[in-house]
Amino acid sequence: MASQENPDALVLSDDPLHPANLIPELCRNFYQLGWVTGTGGGISIRVGDKVFIAPSGVQKERIQPVHIFVLPFPQAAPSPHTDRVFLRRPALNLTESACTPLFWNAFELRDAGSCIHTHSQNAVMATLLWPGSTFAISHQEMIKGVRRGGVGRALSYLDTLELPIIENTPNEEDLKDSMAEAMTRFPEAAGILVRRHGVYVWGPDWEKAKTQAECLDYLFEIGVKMKLAGLETVMGA
Amino acid sequence: MASQENPDALVLSDDPLHPANLIPELCRNFYQLGWVTGTGGGISIRVGDKVFIAPSGVQKERIQPVHIFVLPFPQAAPSPHTDRVFLRRPALNLTESACTPLFWNAFELRDAGSCIHTHSQNAVMATLLWPGSTFAISHQEMIKGVRRGGVGRALSYLDTLELPIIENTPNEEDLKDSMAEAMTRFPEAAGILVRRHGVYVWGPDWEKAKTQAECLDYLFEIGVKMKLAGLETVMGA
Amino acid sequence: MASQENPDALVLSDDPLHPANLIPELCRNFYQLGWVTGTGGGISIRVGDKVFIAPSGVQKERIQPVHIFVLPFPQAAPSPHTDRVFLRRPALNLTESACTPLFWNAFELRDAGSCIHTHSQNAVMATLLWPGSTFAISHQEMIKGVRRGGVGRALSYLDTLELPIIENTPNEEDLKDSMAEAMTRFPEAAGILVRRHGVYVWGPDWEKAKTQAECLDYLFEIGVKMKLAGLETVMGA
Amino acid sequence: MASQENPDALVLSDDPLHPANLIPELCRNFYQLGWVTGTGGGISIRVGDKVFIAPSGVQKERIQPVHIFVLPFPQAAPSPHTDRVFLRRPALNLTESACTPLFWNAFELRDAGSCIHTHSQNAVMATLLWPGSTFAISHQEMIKGVRRGGVGRALSYLDTLELPIIENTPNEEDLKDSMAEAMTRFPEAAGILVRRHGVYVWGPDWEKAKTQAECLDYLFEIGVKMKLAGLETVMGA
Repeated sequence: MASQENPDALVLSDDPLHPANLIPELCRNFYQLGWVTGTGGGISIRVGDKVFIAPSGVQKERIQPVHIFVLPFPQAAPSPHTDRVFLRRPALNLTESACTPLFWNAFELRDAGSCIHTHSQNAVMATLLWPGSTFAISHQEMIKGVRRGGVGRALSYLDTLELPIIENTPNEEDLKDSMAEAMTRFPEAAGILVRRHGVYVWGPDWEKAKTQAECLDYLFEIGVKMKLAGLETVMGA
Repeated sequence: MASQENPDALVLSDDPLHPANLIPELCRNFYQLGWVTGTGGGISIRVGDKVFIAPSGVQKERIQPVHIFVLPFPQAAPSPHTDRVFLRRPALNLTESACTPLFWNAFELRDAGSCIHTHSQNAVMATLLWPGSTFAISHQEMIKGVRRGGVGRALSYLDTLELPIIENTPNEEDLKDSMAEAMTRFPEAAGILVRRHGVYVWGPDWEKAKTQAECLDYLFEIGVKMKLAGLETVMGA
Repeated sequence: MASQENPDALVLSDDPLHPANLIPELCRNFYQLGWVTGTGGGISIRVGDKVFIAPSGVQKERIQPVHIFVLPFPQAAPSPHTDRVFLRRPALNLTESACTPLFWNAFELRDAGSCIHTHSQNAVMATLLWPGSTFAISHQEMIKGVRRGGVGRALSYLDTLELPIIENTPNEEDLKDSMAEAMTRFPEAAGILVRRHGVYVWGPDWEKAKTQAECLDYLFEIGVKMKLAGLETVMGA
Repeated sequence: MASQENPDALVLSDDPLHPANLIPELCRNFYQLGWVTGTGGGISIRVGDKVFIAPSGVQKERIQPVHIFVLPFPQAAPSPHTDRVFLRRPALNLTESACTPLFWNAFELRDAGSCIHTHSQNAVMATLLWPGSTFAISHQEMIKGVRRGGVGRALSYLDTLELPIIENTPNEEDLKDSMAEAMTRFPEAAGILVRRHGVYVWGPDWEKAKTQAECLDYLFEIGVKMKLAGLETVMGA
């Protein structure tokens, strides 16, 4: 990509698959799915040593490439909570997504190339109807669309999908440690549910992050329907 | 904007963010969300001393900039129920939205820059499942997208969102006084629910009115789902 | 419109509001709403002595203006069951919508300018949860978007909306007589529900037919939700 | 179509109704309907001795004509499980849809011109709420949009729609034999449900496959709603 002498070149491209073009397009897609209404949620893409992140508190379906932040990866500080270094900041008075430390978990702990955060009601209802520390469902074809740890080989139809549920915190960035702890405790989980909040999902690249986000959202939705219909969501072997 | 000598200049602009272009675009968006079907609902935008309002009784997803009314703000009469003064009226045989006095409440009592009215079924179901005088929900991440009084600082995850519910009247403009009374009684509420009818939501500008309308609609929807699933919507401290 | 010497001129127009352009556009809209999937449902528009009708058994979201039939109104025969006269037939091997005699009821008995037929699941569920001969709901703002008999003055918030439900028949055109009978017995009804099938809605023109179809569908949907939640759908005076 | 000397000519066409253009367009449509999210599901079209098939494991709403596989029909081997012969393979590192042997059942056993596979939640919920070996519903207008065996004459309103439900297998292609067996046992069925997975639907051409897929999905959806509301889905004669 471009040199640091013209940071805008990092986000201006004719290639529709450039991260700075993909993020706005995917956010419009996610808005249609009800995942990122009201400025919530979003997607971050990492390509090698550069991370592309949307701004915080804006309408996600109206983001433009010029609104995108670019950060170097890794960051010098142990966690990008503060003192973040940027390759490019938008000219407007914007701040980077509050999810940045959470996205970083996926990059650091899973070597992910993309991380998606949604406020999907399917995810939130799953965290309400599964009051314990995990969501689990088995014997659904869509499980096969999910990878071990989000970046490994695909699950089989015979695997039970299990995702940890962590408790929400008033400040989004304070989820960083409990999310990291859950990722360590559940090395095979492709995402982390946050109670009364939503879900984080990642993959080795944006395509696999997105398709896994779709598969997991499908599984939350059908799991909630099954639970409300009195059906068991995990079958015995 | 333009002089009063050519009122059409008040609504003709190449800028997609001009209120007369935004209102039609946002109404198409709201139609897709099911908020303004059957001519119901709409949005008004105030920029300084000018208020832009859609016509009444028309298909909201088909509004054109030339259909927009422009009124001076404030109006001389104490309430814009009658004797309204206009800067620009459409050439067609149209009347301004019947919600005009309700939008005016938001401009006068909250100094709002935009007010949205929806007939969303989530809002109506909330007024049916909360038979008392308020809707309340706590411990939902989306609460953080709502501002105190619609125009102040954002609520925290630890705040309980509470919205007054007023009773519907046969004529929409007759809601003006009870809506104003509820706004005074609940100075922190970002919107007013109208039983068996819908909701009014406002913000300092159209972006914040829209994102708050999305957050509140999300909260009505998940609140209704929780209530029907037998879950508590307000948690003890 | 055009002379009979070139029947295609009856359906080829640059005006987006020409019936032969509107029918395809509205059918795409209705497809998105789930009203006309699987070739079911449709819309007919009458302008003076000409009736524009879509073909039968085709994907409604893919209709083109050249597929539209044009019939003179009125027809010489007492009912357009057979021996229909056409001003224009498509070149392709198409037959006019099987709903034609039902649309004709609205034109003949209500002087309607447009009639819409949907297979909306909201309508069908309403006919299943209201097992008697009428669907009724009161105290909903959206009732105000419906007109007496579909073509008269608007209902008030204090009116109870009541629609007859007729029993389905194996052949769609055999509904003609029972639909006409119900329209005569319920002169104030803006539409006719057909059990396990859908609804017919009409208005003085296509805009009012469409907005009433939206209001009624909204009322079926919220009525079904209320019934399933154990709420009364008609309040005492 | 083109000679085998330039296989790309098999998928490059200005005709929007060419199978290589239709498959991407229809997959975008099916994505909107929630039928093919997360790379699941798809559609295959057969025109005479050529079969057009989408790749496996890709985002179905982003397929391009150059991604399409073309296979000769019939294949020399008794079943296209292995040793498939191709007229054209994409340049990219793609494999043909894992549904290929299932699509082949529809071509071989029903002389179908198109076969659609969806992961629609309506289909999956139907397989969960009908725990036996068939799904059945009667007295729904939409039954009339379904053909005997998928390719014969249309069902009547008085016919009961019955579809076999087969049990899912860990590998999609292992469904081939049980699907073929169910198709033989239920010669009048227009589709095969796969428990906890989805549905296969076919027709004599892509239009009739698509409209039947819509009618069946509608019937699954309303059947599930009726079952959850405690309503009988099959009425006595």
